[in-house]
Amino acid sequence: MQRTIDVCLSPDLMHLYPVRDQTVVVVDILRATSCMTTAFAHHIHSITPFAKLPECLALKAEGYLTAGERDGMKVEGFDLGNSPFEYMDPHLRGKKIAFTTTNGTQAIARSTGAYDIIIGSFLNLSAVVQYLRKAPGNVLIVCSGWKGKVNLEDTVFAGALVENLINDFDYVCDAPMIARRLYASAQNNLKEFLKDSSHIKRLQRLNIQKDIDFCLTEDQYDVVPAIRENRITIVKP
Amino acid sequence: MQRTIDVCLSPDLMHLYPVRDQTVVVVDILRATSCMTTAFAHHIHSITPFAKLPECLALKAEGYLTAGERDGMKVEGFDLGNSPFEYMDPHLRGKKIAFTTTNGTQAIARSTGAYDIIIGSFLNLSAVVQYLRKAPGNVLIVCSGWKGKVNLEDTVFAGALVENLINDFDYVCDAPMIARRLYASAQNNLKEFLKDSSHIKRLQRLNIQKDIDFCLTEDQYDVVPAIRENRITIVKP
Repeated sequence: MQRTIDVCLSPDLMHLYPVRDQTVVVVDILRATSCMTTAFAHHIHSITPFAKLPECLALKAEGYLTAGERDGMKVEGFDLGNSPFEYMDPHLRGKKIAFTTTNGTQAIARSTGAYDIIIGSFLNLSAVVQYLRKAPGNVLIVCSGWKGKVNLEDTVFAGALVENLINDFDYVCDAPMIARRLYASAQNNLKEFLKDSSHIKRLQRLNIQKDIDFCLTEDQYDVVPAIRENRITIVKP
Repeated sequence: MQRTIDVCLSPDLMHLYPVRDQTVVVVDILRATSCMTTAFAHHIHSITPFAKLPECLALKAEGYLTAGERDGMKVEGFDLGNSPFEYMDPHLRGKKIAFTTTNGTQAIARSTGAYDIIIGSFLNLSAVVQYLRKAPGNVLIVCSGWKGKVNLEDTVFAGALVENLINDFDYVCDAPMIARRLYASAQNNLKEFLKDSSHIKRLQRLNIQKDIDFCLTEDQYDVVPAIRENRITIVKP
């Protein structure tokens, strides 16, 4: 039997998607999973994701760098924010990071119990596609959305994965089809297609157009971060 | 300030959408809200929606006709199923119906407390658009989906409403934009666009292509059913 690929458009729908035996791809294009991808391409040691701020801060005492955002802004007292450019610093090589974001780490927390959990973004699209082709079972793409609501950029990225994997997997529900059709409309001009997204408008008010443009660039990095023993580490190359 | 239009893609996301002060449009294209629209165009008196079967059956003793489906099939012992053609019977004129379906009546139940709740389908698209233009406040379109998951046909219909109301309302979230862009891809050939939807495949196994084709036809009826005192009745013309 052909393996299946499915898309959960919001963490608030995760109760409908059993994760056991699934390879889960967590997606938070703007900007958590894009930052994580960038960080591993720049040789950080590991990222420990936390859904809550205090748990994240507590690791500072153990030598971790603290990273993340709330409502699109860097948390006061944290070492790093949520711009991918912050993660290109050569001084981060070998460092351990404790990470929390509004939506992305919540999606990771709700995927607990999956066969495998990996980190996807446009920046490592092809690397993720290659990894999923070799995955032993079914695939579930979990979009982080925005505070429970669906968002355009995560949905379009889910569609990019479905489109690239359509010869390897079947889908049985409508969410992968919706995502795939949106990607078909978007792929020739992703930035233009996404420019009206609510989250992009929210971020534009924070003056981070450079971040947005970078996060929408395909195949910058040939890395696949994945959860191993409660933290994210690199599994490829 | 411009009124807003929003789309809830699944009843399982309704906790994110406060309904107070909103005009809610309940959508279950295949086939509950299409049947309801057809029934009112054929002069039934009222429809009382129930989320659960036993409550529905109990009204039989009070002279109601019982109607609805579970998993796409007519319920044993019920007078009417979920095909719009059953509701074109002239003998139904003036009758009261107790109605339950897998998804549609659940969406109605979760919209309780709204300023107004109306019934939308492709069959009464323009009538609903006219009604919403005159609505005093904001609009929320609630897609019934399939057992909590999003579906393509309800999402595309939500997009048709957003597209037709874009000069009268703003949207601030991504779900209306996703719906609108899907409708833009679909509108020139709705049946072709929707033919791979999981629910249409499910219904095709039940041999009801004629129902599907009819439910995807725009503007058959100039009626707007709406909830008044716990039952659905006609508010237009």
